[in-house]
Amino acid sequence: MTKDDLPSPALLIDIEALEANIAKMSQHARAHSLQLRPHAKTHKCPEVARRQIAAGASGICCATIREAEAMAAAGIAGLLITSEMVGRNRLERLVALTRQQPDTMSVVDNPLHAEQLNDAAEAAGITLNVLIDIDPNLHRTGIQAGAAALELAEKIDRLPHLNLQGLQCYSGISSHVVGFAERRKHSEAAMTPALETFFTIRQKGLPVEIMSGGSTGTYNIDTALDGMTELQTGSYVFMDVDYRSIGGASGAVYDDFANALFVRATVISANHAGLATIDAGFKAFATDRPHLPEIRGIEGVKYHFAGDEHGILDIKEASREIKLGDALEFIVPHCDPNVNLFDKAYVVRDEEIVDAWNIARGYN
Amino acid sequence: MTKDDLPSPALLIDIEALEANIAKMSQHARAHSLQLRPHAKTHKCPEVARRQIAAGASGICCATIREAEAMAAAGIAGLLITSEMVGRNRLERLVALTRQQPDTMSVVDNPLHAEQLNDAAEAAGITLNVLIDIDPNLHRTGIQAGAAALELAEKIDRLPHLNLQGLQCYSGISSHVVGFAERRKHSEAAMTPALETFFTIRQKGLPVEIMSGGSTGTYNIDTALDGMTELQTGSYVFMDVDYRSIGGASGAVYDDFANALFVRATVISANHAGLATIDAGFKAFATDRPHLPEIRGIEGVKYHFAGDEHGILDIKEASREIKLGDALEFIVPHCDPNVNLFDKAYVVRDEEIVDAWNIARGYN
Repeated sequence: MTKDDLPSPALLIDIEALEANIAKMSQHARAHSLQLRPHAKTHKCPEVARRQIAAGASGICCATIREAEAMAAAGIAGLLITSEMVGRNRLERLVALTRQQPDTMSVVDNPLHAEQLNDAAEAAGITLNVLIDIDPNLHRTGIQAGAAALELAEKIDRLPHLNLQGLQCYSGISSHVVGFAERRKHSEAAMTPALETFFTIRQKGLPVEIMSGGSTGTYNIDTALDGMTELQTGSYVFMDVDYRSIGGASGAVYDDFANALFVRATVISANHAGLATIDAGFKAFATDRPHLPEIRGIEGVKYHFAGDEHGILDIKEASREIKLGDALEFIVPHCDPNVNLFDKAYVVRDEEIVDAWNIARGYN
Repeated sequence: MTKDDLPSPALLIDIEALEANIAKMSQHARAHSLQLRPHAKTHKCPEVARRQIAAGASGICCATIREAEAMAAAGIAGLLITSEMVGRNRLERLVALTRQQPDTMSVVDNPLHAEQLNDAAEAAGITLNVLIDIDPNLHRTGIQAGAAALELAEKIDRLPHLNLQGLQCYSGISSHVVGFAERRKHSEAAMTPALETFFTIRQKGLPVEIMSGGSTGTYNIDTALDGMTELQTGSYVFMDVDYRSIGGASGAVYDDFANALFVRATVISANHAGLATIDAGFKAFATDRPHLPEIRGIEGVKYHFAGDEHGILDIKEASREIKLGDALEFIVPHCDPNVNLFDKAYVVRDEEIVDAWNIARGYN
């Protein structure tokens, strides 16, 4: 199967870039004596997770119960669901998942939710493993660091069907701060109260072992934080336009990891000089950030969105001819929601399609 | 099954509102002696299409080959694929689809593409039905109205394996112009050259029967255009925040059709007075427009995006208490890409879940 056999638009994974990214992050975590539990919210793909585990990851983070079920079905253990599993449907599925993979963890940020988890575990005759989710002062999820978190830890310790294993603090905003020095400052400010709380809870004699956090944007910042035990980086496997723009430790482009994810699209209309229309719009590229898709391997081409199924390329300055029927490849604006638009990723090695991997996207 | 059994977030269809919308648009088309070929790009759902056909639609428009395959598999005929089927994968699938449903049509805007379609049809020993796609001066897809379109029509007429059935002109921008009078002006300016071309081609003796166009935003504008033979409205089945904001023929809110599509989400964190975090962010709500999700049935609540899996509600002014675990329903910003985020829509009648319909989303 070659690229020309693919449906269009199609999601492509460059397997060599992917494997290099996985190896580099694993090596980084090892070098800093940190566990690595990469986040599957980026790829939603057991085949990627298997490669992360094989390279030394201690488990896989998931954002949704559906991602976690897909990972468990593929035999992957060490799952940490990083969102609060609130509501009957989620609780039932978390119980079933924990029966399948007993070391599964999820997070809790509220005493009422802790009681609901305990009740569900008791009814099922199992123990649920939890981390306390600490608010990095975003007020999105998490309990406030300090006294409130300690009180919750003590409460969970008294609940017989919950097993408190540690803390999580994920500062999503820190990850996207532009400029390395500013990003370090932001992440340190966000993480420090959580780390202090981790030590406080340990000093009280509670057996917490895990302090999980960090992201692709801060992977080489959070290693310097005293108390971190594991990184939950996600986007490094694929990279995107957004992450490249935040700047690296030494340079305006963050290129610590290679672009491994592309959307391949086709020129389906070309009736005007200097313009070409491709079959990839709002339903093929993520639109949640100001960033636009960037064409691969051709200079001087600008993309703009032109509806659900179309993008228009300004090709007046293009470094090569672009014509009707041409297939073109693009770096995506934001990898996580972009992957979620496709059911399959086609795996490319040396221009050949060597595999097609299923993506556990959506919410069913 | 009740709403409380659903995964969260979940896509809901209010069946009574859906059926009322379908009936109203069908009645409108009949009253103006127009065919109605509703667009499946909105719903991607054979169950909705079946109801549109049962109410009198002459067929179904599709934006992608995948949508069309899903419709054909459900036995739906009269398919018009409104995007240019360029590229080997699409041509092969168009041929297979036409074998299955011989009245299937697709569009062409370029003589080279016409030859490719003719070659594919010849190789398969079939005839492919086509409409000429006319550019409503957007330079997205379509050939220029007038001489260029006439020349393409004459070329297609000479190609033995193509059957020219008419024209399409879809002015997506007109549909979203705010204010009824401005919208009418925009649509008339966009559509008039196409309609003139339609008459010119007929006067040359070419047997074109179909002049297809129109959208939910212009359904009661394009009826006044001399020459239109069918409407390809889509969003009216579901409606969304965007369409409500464009204004109706008599009023600031466009409410000719009822809201029939909702995302149901759950409050998964509520640790701060005046705020509640739900489990629906960039992966549950379309982000391609400036519009935000609007809560259903509660006053004084504002949503803002807070990442892939989260939205934060400002509930300081909420007309009722909102607490951890509450399930809330939202009108979506833009229905078409929002439906594309889900694999299933749950069908609600009188608060009961009466069915779950598959959505042919994505591109495989």
